[in-house]
Amino acid sequence: MKFLFEILKRFSVSGDESAMSDFLLQYIDQRKNYWNVLPEIYFGENFHDCILLKFGQPRTAVFAHMDTIGFMSRYNNQLISVGGPEIIEGTKLVGKDSLGEIFCNLKGDENEISHDFPRGIDPGTRLSFAQNVRIDEEFIQAAYLDNRLGMYVAMNLCENITDGWVVFSTYEEHGGGSMPFLLKFIQQTAPIKQALIADITWITEGVQFHNGVVISIRDKFVPRKKFIDRILSLLEGSGIPFQLEVEEYGGSDGREVQMSPYAIDWCFIGAAEENVHTPDEKVSLVDLEAMLDIYPYLMERL
Amino acid sequence: MKFLFEILKRFSVSGDESAMSDFLLQYIDQRKNYWNVLPEIYFGENFHDCILLKFGQPRTAVFAHMDTIGFMSRYNNQLISVGGPEIIEGTKLVGKDSLGEIFCNLKGDENEISHDFPRGIDPGTRLSFAQNVRIDEEFIQAAYLDNRLGMYVAMNLCENITDGWVVFSTYEEHGGGSMPFLLKFIQQTAPIKQALIADITWITEGVQFHNGVVISIRDKFVPRKKFIDRILSLLEGSGIPFQLEVEEYGGSDGREVQMSPYAIDWCFIGAAEENVHTPDEKVSLVDLEAMLDIYPYLMERL
Amino acid sequence: MKFLFEILKRFSVSGDESAMSDFLLQYIDQRKNYWNVLPEIYFGENFHDCILLKFGQPRTAVFAHMDTIGFMSRYNNQLISVGGPEIIEGTKLVGKDSLGEIFCNLKGDENEISHDFPRGIDPGTRLSFAQNVRIDEEFIQAAYLDNRLGMYVAMNLCENITDGWVVFSTYEEHGGGSMPFLLKFIQQTAPIKQALIADITWITEGVQFHNGVVISIRDKFVPRKKFIDRILSLLEGSGIPFQLEVEEYGGSDGREVQMSPYAIDWCFIGAAEENVHTPDEKVSLVDLEAMLDIYPYLMERL
Repeated sequence: MKFLFEILKRFSVSGDESAMSDFLLQYIDQRKNYWNVLPEIYFGENFHDCILLKFGQPRTAVFAHMDTIGFMSRYNNQLISVGGPEIIEGTKLVGKDSLGEIFCNLKGDENEISHDFPRGIDPGTRLSFAQNVRIDEEFIQAAYLDNRLGMYVAMNLCENITDGWVVFSTYEEHGGGSMPFLLKFIQQTAPIKQALIADITWITEGVQFHNGVVISIRDKFVPRKKFIDRILSLLEGSGIPFQLEVEEYGGSDGREVQMSPYAIDWCFIGAAEENVHTPDEKVSLVDLEAMLDIYPYLMERL
Repeated sequence: MKFLFEILKRFSVSGDESAMSDFLLQYIDQRKNYWNVLPEIYFGENFHDCILLKFGQPRTAVFAHMDTIGFMSRYNNQLISVGGPEIIEGTKLVGKDSLGEIFCNLKGDENEISHDFPRGIDPGTRLSFAQNVRIDEEFIQAAYLDNRLGMYVAMNLCENITDGWVVFSTYEEHGGGSMPFLLKFIQQTAPIKQALIADITWITEGVQFHNGVVISIRDKFVPRKKFIDRILSLLEGSGIPFQLEVEEYGGSDGREVQMSPYAIDWCFIGAAEENVHTPDEKVSLVDLEAMLDIYPYLMERL
Repeated sequence: MKFLFEILKRFSVSGDESAMSDFLLQYIDQRKNYWNVLPEIYFGENFHDCILLKFGQPRTAVFAHMDTIGFMSRYNNQLISVGGPEIIEGTKLVGKDSLGEIFCNLKGDENEISHDFPRGIDPGTRLSFAQNVRIDEEFIQAAYLDNRLGMYVAMNLCENITDGWVVFSTYEEHGGGSMPFLLKFIQQTAPIKQALIADITWITEGVQFHNGVVISIRDKFVPRKKFIDRILSLLEGSGIPFQLEVEEYGGSDGREVQMSPYAIDWCFIGAAEENVHTPDEKVSLVDLEAMLDIYPYLMERL
């Protein structure tokens, strides 16, 4: 879990993912020779801050977004949201501008958000939740489990995968925009028919802690029934605990697969959390374990 | 009208169009040798559940969506919408899950929809309106005239068309997503400059029963004036009754033509109905006749 | 400024840009031989009413939309919006239908807009604000400064540019739809990595008259920080006055660059106005001057 702790403490509010991207590249470079299959690595300005790893002969791609929600300073002491953070008075925020490090508290509510930093902050400066990772026997709790856990699962998958794309995308929390060029590149390089979205969803009345990784039958968007049915039939007898989600709202990188000019099936698969988009996102370790297990299992069989 | 009755009784809630697609393919296979021109037929997993028919040298494509609105079971006895069905207490719903056939009634309102089936329904199960087709001298009334009539008109067009694409799309009622890959395939195979959307619109203060097929000048999206003007000038002296629509809301597969990376003009042309997205959609037979007539007329001249 | 006055008096409500496009082509044809570099000109039905000018070896494209907001007649004396015009009782509107010229006044409010023209207007007829250009020592005031000023700046850029695309797009005010095919054509013809959006933004508490052209750090969408930082560092020591904008809402052709299947960085750069989307849009001449200056400066250096 050292990798997970490393990425949990790093900053990558949507639109400013370059430091996270650099860290991932460095990590991949150190680890890749220990992996079962050596991937081809695509990155750099042609991919903005995204990273694509191609293993063997891909049939399926796994997407994990590397950006987080956060805030941006506007004028005076105003803040506006990046993505959809919960607005909770007193939340500790951190960042950096031309004058140095910033530590402050969030003030106000959805209608008017501000900070209490004693000096002005350069307009356009990104702030994120101060990190505080807590682990006990049952749970991990921290800011940005969405989607550090998805990245962790995707990186873990790299160790044993033989065929497939593992892709770290940007901008997912704020309207998207990297998926279209990633999908285009994938389809031109080693095309796929299937995509799995490694991301974190919500605890609801139908999705409970400790019941396993969530297979999402739908969120705001509806993947094709045929593909969900195939995944469910593959999981029979796998021994991996999972639960089904049926939601009316919410979206993921899956939306952009659906809207892409390619006939690619997709499914969102990930652990569920409480306190979504707050500094206290909370995930069951049992569910995370199931998420770690399900990706290699499905990537081999799909 | 036997084909229309056949498709009216079939189930194809968005995301689960495969049975309808299979039926269409079977029907096309039986009929195609009686058509004026033998089309090339594109279908199968590379097109998900969509079907494309290429006749001769296409200049224009006709799109008819084969999916319908409906409901999906969530947890307990909850339902959520697929597409935008009207929520009317007591509406009869049908479907099927792992335990067998389902017949139940809708309960509640927009804020909380549920069903009264005595047992639980598998989460993620699709339900649709129970069908009840009524025809008299003036009207046809049934669930899913939107867009079974569009499919019927498109299939009828196949009998005499010499040049053009006839395309059965999926997902139209729930956010779309098949049009981008259909358009890409069309432009790579036999490109077009024009698209007609064979779908059903609404009776309003300006669009009345028995006044003919509707040419939509706009809905939420605005097609190019030049193209609408060309269609209207072609219709002069055609003898086909039509009326003009100018709406601020609503969308169709035309939206995805507009947003596509191709300079393709588009226009929505179809009959208008009352009781939109209920089990009692109602269309004038005179207007349907005009819709049947206008497609071969325009496809020849555009 | 003769060109600016010419385009200010012309009509091009979204979806009906062909007359404006013809005028631009005529103007370009007259002027191009006086330009530093002779561009390749792309236009015609394959581009709908858009125009692309390719100068030298492009690295960056400038986009200026040529459409405007306005109104469309519906049934009876009703109007509906095209784009997002301010609804102000008594606003003078002009247009033309099959019966001739139309001069009328807007009545009602956002919930129900109508006109007071003594006769009916053909359904689907576009109306725009009556034009009234006012210039004094400090300000220009008129309808449709958004985006006649962007077009003016883009055309002015043509005089000295050596490398780059200058593109006049359509439909920006009403949902977009030309950018996807423009970007596809650009990337297939002479691909770019960077896009500048020449458009007009809003005076706010943080953006004031006479403080220079606005570099937008974000609107509803968030361009990549790396690119904004590069622009800002290029501007150091340029002597061109500029101010930074950080907004939560609003969009531009930049949104479609962001969502495109190409890894193209983008930034919105333009003067700010008061009385947005009214007949009285007002821009500081000093800010317009800075906007005229910044485009050649950046196009040379980016």
